[in-house]
Amino acid sequence: MSDQEEQVESHTFSVLVDNEPGVLARVIGLFSARGYNIDSLTVSETEHERHVSRISIVSSATPQVLEQIRAQLDRLVPVHMVRDLSTTERPLERELALIKVAGVGDARVEALRLSDAFRATVIDATVDHFVFEITGRSSKVNQFVALMMPLGLVEVARTGIAALSRGKSGIFDE
Amino acid sequence: MSDQEEQVESHTFSVLVDNEPGVLARVIGLFSARGYNIDSLTVSETEHERHVSRISIVSSATPQVLEQIRAQLDRLVPVHMVRDLSTTERPLERELALIKVAGVGDARVEALRLSDAFRATVIDATVDHFVFEITGRSSKVNQFVALMMPLGLVEVARTGIAALSRGKSGIFDE
Repeated sequence: MSDQEEQVESHTFSVLVDNEPGVLARVIGLFSARGYNIDSLTVSETEHERHVSRISIVSSATPQVLEQIRAQLDRLVPVHMVRDLSTTERPLERELALIKVAGVGDARVEALRLSDAFRATVIDATVDHFVFEITGRSSKVNQFVALMMPLGLVEVARTGIAALSRGKSGIFDE
Repeated sequence: MSDQEEQVESHTFSVLVDNEPGVLARVIGLFSARGYNIDSLTVSETEHERHVSRISIVSSATPQVLEQIRAQLDRLVPVHMVRDLSTTERPLERELALIKVAGVGDARVEALRLSDAFRATVIDATVDHFVFEITGRSSKVNQFVALMMPLGLVEVARTGIAALSRGKSGIFDE
């Protein structure tokens, strides 16, 4: 194996599945049974048909293992289609986080100043706390959470990544 | 059983779990094995400890079944703590959606006009398509998707709900 082959990459898979009980359990079971890593997972109903759901999964592995994951997802029975979005040009990936910060004085002023810089919005506040809503790539959210850490971070809830391809066509259009 | 008891409600659970392989599979397995409904599920690492993850699950059921779900989650071994956020005052719930709309002429103008009204932002565009990013409660996202349907909706990726309680305290602070 060359060094290049052993390099770990992060890929985003978009998966169309039957919207039936147990499907999500089977997809996640495939990852846990084989020890594949899940960095992020989101599920939603699709626009066209109520009985089809879209799962976006971000996984980090070597290129060979990522190709195994794609192939095994493709063979799973409730799966209609799988696309590796990371093979498309700069896929659109966004996540949302709610971030609670408690504090007064300078720390509070600084938290609000940083939230402006990151285009976060305040969705709940009292004299001694804020809840910020922020959206962006994961790296931006990570950076904002790290900056809030010394300013009175209380808790964070993140959604994980929703992903689409660029351009006019749908991910699963042939 | 009284009529009131049979009424289906939607509750949001916030669950702290060990961040180990297979934990998500076990939590989802509990829902699928017992036929409990999952409307939305999101997972993220927590702010404090890298080995603890937070899962937000929205489920619709009768109050008795919702209480069963809470109790069974609480008994699951990798689960540290469970809170039913719907018992707190107006929990903060937000999701993000990426929405691709293709079209020209009046439909395109109308799609852009509606995106302004819903405070959606354009994150990708050509002369004949837009990708909108929108955040809000699920009902707002549902409404926007429904409005885009006749205007050239191509596809939608949604994250599901991230949830926090209002006020200064963390969900799991006693």
